[in-house]
This record gives sequence, C-alpha cells and structure tokens, in this order.
Amino acid sequence: MTTDFAATRAQFDLPEGVIYLDGNSLGPLPKMAAARVARTVTEEWGQMLITGWNKAGWMTQPSRIGDRIARLIGAEAGHVATGDTLSIKVYQALASALEMNPGRKVVLSDTGNFPSDLYMAEGLCRTLGPDYQLKTVAPEDVLDALDETVAVMMITEVDYRTGRRHDMAALTARAHAVGALAIWDLAHSAGAFRVDVANGGADFAVGCSYKYLNSGPGGPAFIYVAPRHAEVARPALSGWLGHAAPFAFDLSYRPGTGVERMRVGTPPILQLAALEASLDIWDQVDLDDLRRVSLALTDQFIAGVEAACPDLVLATPRTHHDRGSQVSFRHPEGYAMMQALIARGVIGDFRAPDILRFGFTPLFINAEDVARAIAIIADVMQNRLWDRPEYKTRALVT
Amino acid sequence: MTTDFAATRAQFDLPEGVIYLDGNSLGPLPKMAAARVARTVTEEWGQMLITGWNKAGWMTQPSRIGDRIARLIGAEAGHVATGDTLSIKVYQALASALEMNPGRKVVLSDTGNFPSDLYMAEGLCRTLGPDYQLKTVAPEDVLDALDETVAVMMITEVDYRTGRRHDMAALTARAHAVGALAIWDLAHSAGAFRVDVANGGADFAVGCSYKYLNSGPGGPAFIYVAPRHAEVARPALSGWLGHAAPFAFDLSYRPGTGVERMRVGTPPILQLAALEASLDIWDQVDLDDLRRVSLALTDQFIAGVEAACPDLVLATPRTHHDRGSQVSFRHPEGYAMMQALIARGVIGDFRAPDILRFGFTPLFINAEDVARAIAIIADVMQNRLWDRPEYKTRALVT
Repeated sequence: MTTDFAATRAQFDLPEGVIYLDGNSLGPLPKMAAARVARTVTEEWGQMLITGWNKAGWMTQPSRIGDRIARLIGAEAGHVATGDTLSIKVYQALASALEMNPGRKVVLSDTGNFPSDLYMAEGLCRTLGPDYQLKTVAPEDVLDALDETVAVMMITEVDYRTGRRHDMAALTARAHAVGALAIWDLAHSAGAFRVDVANGGADFAVGCSYKYLNSGPGGPAFIYVAPRHAEVARPALSGWLGHAAPFAFDLSYRPGTGVERMRVGTPPILQLAALEASLDIWDQVDLDDLRRVSLALTDQFIAGVEAACPDLVLATPRTHHDRGSQVSFRHPEGYAMMQALIARGVIGDFRAPDILRFGFTPLFINAEDVARAIAIIADVMQNRLWDRPEYKTRALVT
Repeated sequence: MTTDFAATRAQFDLPEGVIYLDGNSLGPLPKMAAARVARTVTEEWGQMLITGWNKAGWMTQPSRIGDRIARLIGAEAGHVATGDTLSIKVYQALASALEMNPGRKVVLSDTGNFPSDLYMAEGLCRTLGPDYQLKTVAPEDVLDALDETVAVMMITEVDYRTGRRHDMAALTARAHAVGALAIWDLAHSAGAFRVDVANGGADFAVGCSYKYLNSGPGGPAFIYVAPRHAEVARPALSGWLGHAAPFAFDLSYRPGTGVERMRVGTPPILQLAALEASLDIWDQVDLDDLRRVSLALTDQFIAGVEAACPDLVLATPRTHHDRGSQVSFRHPEGYAMMQALIARGVIGDFRAPDILRFGFTPLFINAEDVARAIAIIADVMQNRLWDRPEYKTRALVT
C-alpha cells in the first residue's frame, strides 16, 4: 500500500494554530476516539453493565488489540498482551527473563534508558536478593559490556533524550552469543518506524501506547514474549486474568496459554476503546512509508534549525540508521526556550538537564508544519524571546 | 447529613426494566461520568495535548482522588494513592510489608480471599525465594492461625462468594499482638459500608473502584499505607511516578513522600475522569445511612427469597455484624438460574461452583426494586424457568 498521510492527518483532532511536535510523548486525539470512548461509556458500560464483559467483548479486547500492535512491532500474532503501565510490563519481562537464566544475576542496561526501567530493575533486584544487580553503562558501550555474567540485557531502543537508536538486532545477537536474554523497550519505537521483534531475536519486548500509538493519557502498555518462551516464562505478577481459568476461581495459580499469562488484573476498558480507535488509523499506514517520511521530516528540521540557530547543539545522530523519530537539541536555557515555543504554538518538550525535544509523526505532521516550526524557533532564538521570567518557572511536569 | 437516596439514584443511568444487583461487581454509569469523560477526551486530551498534565491537573489527579476515597475508608488525608489494578496494589502492599518484617516468611490468608490476591502472593513468594510461603486457612480459622511465624496477614474483608465479613479490627489486633502486619483488601468494603482503616489499625489497605465506587470497567485501584509506615515502606514496584522527583530523570530511585511512592507509571486519565464523576455522588452519602439501608435491603432480600424459594441455600451470614452488602445463595444449577434471571432483567452474577450472588447498593437500589427482584426470582424458581439448555452454556466471563 501507499500511505495517504493527508488522509491520516485528517483523522486527528488538532487544535488550531498548534504545530504538535510532541506526539512522541503524548499522541493527539484521533477524531474517532471521542466517539468510540463515548460509545463504550454510554452504550456498553451504561446499557450492558456487567454483561459487557461478554457482550461487548471487553474480556478479549486486550488480546485483539495485542494482535493489531503485533503488526507494528513485527511480532507473531497471538504473542502480544496489552494492559497495565509500561513500568509494570518491564518488571514482568525482567522477572521472567531472570528466572529463565538462573545461573546469572546481572541485568545490563544503559544510562540512556528511561529511568523508570532502571528503577523497576532496581526494585526487582532488591526483591530477588543481594546477589542480583543492575549494571548500567553508556549507550555506546552496551555491546562491549555484554559478557558471560549478564543474565538479561534490558535496552530501550531509542534514547528518550537524544533520539539515538540502538542496533537492537546486533545487540541481541551478541547477548544471545554470551548466553543472555534480551528485553526490548519499544516506548519510542512502536509507531515510530518498523520494528521487527521476531526477526531481531527479542526474547521479550514491551512498550506503551500513548506516544506514537495515540491512545491518550495513561493508555495501556503491551508486552511481547517470543513464541519459543511463551509456555516457559513464569509470571512474577501472577494475577487472575493471567490464570489458565480465571473464572474457575482456583486457589492456586496456573499460568494461562502463552502471553495471556502476562495479563494481570481487570483491563482498562475506556483507555482500550481509545487505543482501538487509534489503531484504525494505524491500519492505513505502511511502515516503510512512515520511516521514509519520518526521516525526511527530521532531516528537514535538523537542517533548518541548525542553519537558523547556531546556539542550539544537536543531540540526535545525523546518521539515519542511528536515529529514531525525534530530534533533540541541547541548550542550558532549554526549559525557558521550550516554554516560549509552546506559547507560540510549537509544542515539544524539555528533558532535564538541557534537552529540547521534538517528535516527528508523519500521521499528522508534514513538511509545511516543519517549515513553520523552524521559522518560529528561529524567531524565538534570534530575538531571545525566551528570556522572560515567566518562562523560567518550572511546572510540575516538564 | 441525611442521605437522599432517591437523589443519588437519579444520578445513575440505569437501563429500563433492569434491576441491577451486580453493583458489587461492576457499578453502573453515573450520568455525569459520560460528560466528564467526554470533556477529558475532547477538551483536555484533544485541546491541551501534552500540556494537560499540568493544565488539567492530570499528574496530581491520583492523589486528589485518593483523598476523596480516604473519607470512605477512614484513612487520613494524603495517605491513599490511586492507579494500576487491585492485583498490582496487593503485590505492592505485600512486598513492602514482608520487607518490613524480615525475620518471618509466612503470609497468612484465607480460602475465601479473592484468588488473585492469593496468586499475587504466590508469585511474590516465589520471587523472594524458597523460604517464603503463603499459608491459607478457612475464613473462620484466621484468628487462631495467627502466630509468631506470620509476617503478614493478608485478608479481604468481605468474602466475594458468601458476603461473609471478617472482624478486621479484631484480626488486626491479634496480628499485631503476634508481631505480624495486616493488609486489608477492601474490594467489597469500600462503598459498601463505613470502613475505618486508621482506627482499625490496618498497616496497608488496598481496593478497587469499579465495584461499589462505580468508576467503570477497569477503573483504577487504590492503596493506603498507614502514616506510621509511610516513610518506611519501600516499594518493590519502584516506578518513576513514585520517585521523589520524577522529572529530574535521575538514574537511581529515591522514593517519593509517603504514599506517593506507591505510584508506578502513567495514570489512566480517562478512567480517573469517570471515577471523579462517581465520587461526586459519593460526596452526598453518609456512610451510616448507607449501612442502615444496605442491611434493610439485604434483610428484605433474604427473607423474601427464603420464603419463596426453599431450594436456595443461604450462603451469607444472617448476623448483621458478619455481613457485607451482598447476599449469596447456593444451588447446583446456579449458573443456569442466573442466566434465566438476567434474561428477565434481574442482574446478579454467578461464582463457581454454585453461588448466585446479588449486590445491594443503596445509591441506586431501593426496597421496591428488591420486592420486584424477589417476585421474579420466585417465578423463575417455582416454574423452573431456568431449566433450558441455552441457560446452561457457560460464557467466557461468568
């Protein structure tokens, strides 16, 4: 197929006058999501009440949605479960992986990983006992740090700060060669470009849906377990909906079939409804088209901003192969600059200590948007429009 | 205050011709929830996009909602966090409690506890190592089973099958006397009657919002940590939103203040919007009025059904002190009977192997509803209307 990105753009509700370069943090509202959520609330919850679990298919919705995410990440159908938050899914993947590699106690990650992944690993290691440790190295040192002590390599493919992209297949091949398992965090990958967990050899993969997948604030996460492990991985968070027969109400846990065992508690039906509407747009997208346009937009943005704003230091790799679908610049006054941009309708975000971050999402951003964004950034920088006290007061969420 | 239950009833969207006796499983739709969720979707997510985290107060919503739940469970303000599912909150409470009582390895629960609580405990014990064990006894034997080996007593106050209610204060006093900590699961308590975690001595409490609190399918759970433990309890699921400074993006975890550390990942904003609307109704309710009416309704139901249906065996305690806000009857053909009742507009549910379960929720159920329900049940039973093949085919969710 050839993707019609004008058509996908028309399916989003974008505020007038806003150039939204933060779909990598929270995707915008698909127009149909409003109707879908409303229908779920009034016609399903309101009218079906408890019978919605069967009649509206709520109970099986997480796996139906998992199958639709599977296409975006190159997973085999039937091997993706949705629910919970990404941090919880990280914990599940890591706990299962460590249990599958019992002779080793080291989790290897990198300092560019999203902190919550590291925190969850810390917490799990503490629970497992003093032998277990989380070891972090610089992103570019992961390959060399993979040795026979490593039980599990846990890596987020795209660095949330810089947009630097790991070569996951290469890291995973090396991890396997030294006897380690590989967990891929796809927070900034799913919906950013074609992911191939199956061919790349991922043992587990996790990700969230509220960024590029546009499911709305607090949308559910997902987890993939490679088919070769699906009946082996034992869930640490063994909730009733991961049980082989949840409604038998047995007193002892028996894991469900395959990835279904990674379900925990009652799925968030309203959030899933929004995600379902968003996936209807994703069904219209070819991932090679997506990547082609994404790279064109990030190239255009890098060139334009660098030409106009010499004070901004590019933090994102210039090489296509090493780049996700975001562009970051560093500046000590990055926080104030981002507030000034947001006030002028260019919405990106700031990541401590000095990163201005912009996400590029072909589903609703085009070259004309990027050109306008560059012009506004140039104006703000060249005229120091960011240098006002009200832009320097930090909000709770940055 | 005196609660006007006709006024609360008018605030729910109840389908015509339905007598909904399953609010203990999934509460019905508060009329305002539809508008609140729609506003959150279109005006907040749609128009504010990422800035909704600050502008719409999404980031602080879990603690604001926690404070409103606090009143219903007798918790001190500032000591209830919302998010995740109940199973996850059980895991958090249990992991922290076990870590606080390091010399002991036994989790004591009962066979009337909801299976997911037991499964989560099983999973946690396996992660902690072979010394840890979950011990379950019959519900009436918990008091006697509390001895110096028990690290944590983990009890669901009201038995999901029978509606039998534990004397939580007495159990907790005994637990403390033998040096154990007490976790209260309030799944069938919060919104069913007045709960008093603070005066009852609970060390931790957890619960869900989609039952009596009417937050909709998959609504978030909550966790209470007693103030005396709030700065001591260490989270096992140490997610970024439980960090002292989530947006500093430190590489190491530092727990947030008090119960805030029990937050994990991004909160489910659409589900929280529905819960917020439901709590507006709860703000109009006096919990003593609630209990008075609840007991009157369950008394009425027990008397009416027993008089009309001698084949149904009461599974719920007759003593008010020992009863939650549900009534259960046993019958080997309970599944078919419940399907026949649902087909006639009396919605309760079935719990394996033989329980017909009916919840009584004064916010939207009154004595007239109960009288009509009794008449329909009598008709179904006396005329064996349930004895049809289509009522005997089990659905996925029962």
